[in-house]
Amino acid sequence: MTRGISDERSLVKLLWNRGFAVMRAPASGSSTKMARPDIIAGNSNRNLQYAIEVKTTHDEVLYIARESINQLVEFAERFGCQPIVALKFKSRLKSWIFIQPQQLMITPAQNYKTTCPEAQRIGIDFKTLIGEGKQLKLVP
Amino acid sequence: MTRGISDERSLVKLLWNRGFAVMRAPASGSSTKMARPDIIAGNSNRNLQYAIEVKTTHDEVLYIARESINQLVEFAERFGCQPIVALKFKSRLKSWIFIQPQQLMITPAQNYKTTCPEAQRIGIDFKTLIGEGKQLKLVP
Repeated sequence: MTRGISDERSLVKLLWNRGFAVMRAPASGSSTKMARPDIIAGNSNRNLQYAIEVKTTHDEVLYIARESINQLVEFAERFGCQPIVALKFKSRLKSWIFIQPQQLMITPAQNYKTTCPEAQRIGIDFKTLIGEGKQLKLVP
Repeated sequence: MTRGISDERSLVKLLWNRGFAVMRAPASGSSTKMARPDIIAGNSNRNLQYAIEVKTTHDEVLYIARESINQLVEFAERFGCQPIVALKFKSRLKSWIFIQPQQLMITPAQNYKTTCPEAQRIGIDFKTLIGEGKQLKLVP
């Protein structure tokens, strides 16, 4: 449930190598209150643009603060791109799983969570994210 | 001809306050060789998305390294947005001028430059950039 800077960098590189333009947000928190994701990535050839929140964990359950998701969604709506949560369950899987914010479960305290089995069930893999998968589960 | 971090922050705030989602690139140079602009900004309501290179100077002539412009254009082409150079001639004008990369002059050493009068002649102002001006000089 950390941002996981080195994992984030590897995801950035994966996207860049598949033709995306990618920008990471500055590491330190901005002094302003502007919403922002961890990464923004676009591929004009595939007509794909994502605002991405990156979350990694060694646990089975991954919790995400409400504010992170709210900022992700606000940024994506303003910008005009799709909000995506990039998940890595480091004790269980080597690969990334990508889900949409509305696919997260809501905790009693109104934050968000998901689990490794649930994310595997509902999420998409990297190839699907970048438009190379067999089917795109994402709904607009 | 510096990046002008405080000027850049003020431009980010201007864009945010007009409904844009905005992300600044990390301050330090990335260790990777990925192209990137200083700012990326999008406004879904106005269907506008820009990759922005920010340049400020106290001089009359503003020089920009070839590599900065090449990166700006490459990023914008990959991402699928419009490349824009945001200029501030601090000794002469308080306001920003925005021009397209191909409107820059080429120096003998194959870098880029423009001047305050030239930028005023060919550029657009902030209101036009954000789609509120009377006419949009930008050509696709």
